[in-house]
Amino acid sequence: MKILIIGANGTIGKKLTPQLSQHHTIITAGRNSGDIRVDVSSETSIKAMFEQVTAIDACICIAASGPLDDFSTLTEQQLSADLKGKLFGQINLVLIGQKYLNNNGCFTLTSGIFADIPYRGVTGGAITSGALHSFVLSAAIELQRGLRINVVSPGMAEDSAADYGHLFPGLKPVSMQALVDAYEKTINEDITGQILRVY
Amino acid sequence: MKILIIGANGTIGKKLTPQLSQHHTIITAGRNSGDIRVDVSSETSIKAMFEQVTAIDACICIAASGPLDDFSTLTEQQLSADLKGKLFGQINLVLIGQKYLNNNGCFTLTSGIFADIPYRGVTGGAITSGALHSFVLSAAIELQRGLRINVVSPGMAEDSAADYGHLFPGLKPVSMQALVDAYEKTINEDITGQILRVY
Repeated sequence: MKILIIGANGTIGKKLTPQLSQHHTIITAGRNSGDIRVDVSSETSIKAMFEQVTAIDACICIAASGPLDDFSTLTEQQLSADLKGKLFGQINLVLIGQKYLNNNGCFTLTSGIFADIPYRGVTGGAITSGALHSFVLSAAIELQRGLRINVVSPGMAEDSAADYGHLFPGLKPVSMQALVDAYEKTINEDITGQILRVY
Repeated sequence: MKILIIGANGTIGKKLTPQLSQHHTIITAGRNSGDIRVDVSSETSIKAMFEQVTAIDACICIAASGPLDDFSTLTEQQLSADLKGKLFGQINLVLIGQKYLNNNGCFTLTSGIFADIPYRGVTGGAITSGALHSFVLSAAIELQRGLRINVVSPGMAEDSAADYGHLFPGLKPVSMQALVDAYEKTINEDITGQILRVY
């Protein structure tokens, strides 16, 4: 299969990419690295990417985590900015990409544990992830030509624990292998509309 | 208790308002009717409302349903417009209202069944509702001064079935009383961070 990985150079992407490379042709895309440059917060950039990489069987997006927020002073403006990349960016990948992927291709998006288990300071992340879960349920019954879509909802990745663990006391890191396996499962198995919670 | 009901003149509001009036002081607000005019898609309008109605113990928002959408041609621009009122409007009610409600007051928002059970043509509604669910989980642990927050997720209201039932074949209408009881429960019981699914 020909697989496009957006965010291949991130914490999870670094482990996922070599594993998938064993059996598939990988094209990497990212804001600052990869075979192709893409800014997922821009529709124009997403379109340009899909025009460039033709005949894709799978598109995996491992989006970056969002910023922390302060609920007592949070505004719509800040929230909208925080939702721009990870929520609307990933939705746009699907809305635009549905015209480009090969028949029976698949999308794999990335949400996060805060959709279901709240922590302080991550309201924007929670909204993004909850929205993505419901989006994937809807998209799964809307997509045509046999296209599939799933979302991986990671807990705190083991490789992020040193940097972010102190912000989320009690949140147990999940192994990189478990995360990588979840993404790989969405490629290898004929599933759609699934939320793969890895925590 | 002094309860502010936004959307008191809508399908559910019409039944809820008289029931709550038996034991509480009700102030109604709406875009085109009610004691106070408010446009929940406007931060300015929400602020003006809270400045006007002081010492509120509860704020219930029974937002209107969103428009239908066509997934194959859906764009970020259309989606953003669809999310403006029901998602950002309700979030803004909480972000702004947290400064105005009485101690131990409560918010009750309205999502919908499409967060969990997808139908075609309602991707925007699904995203809105999924996002609201996760927002409420987060807000429940963020709100100060004993403030509570819950969300009612209605299926198709019995009184809407004649107008909208044909759009969602197989979606069984839920009784108005069950819906009204769910909203009332959020007022009377000391619960927070709950998603009350009524379907």
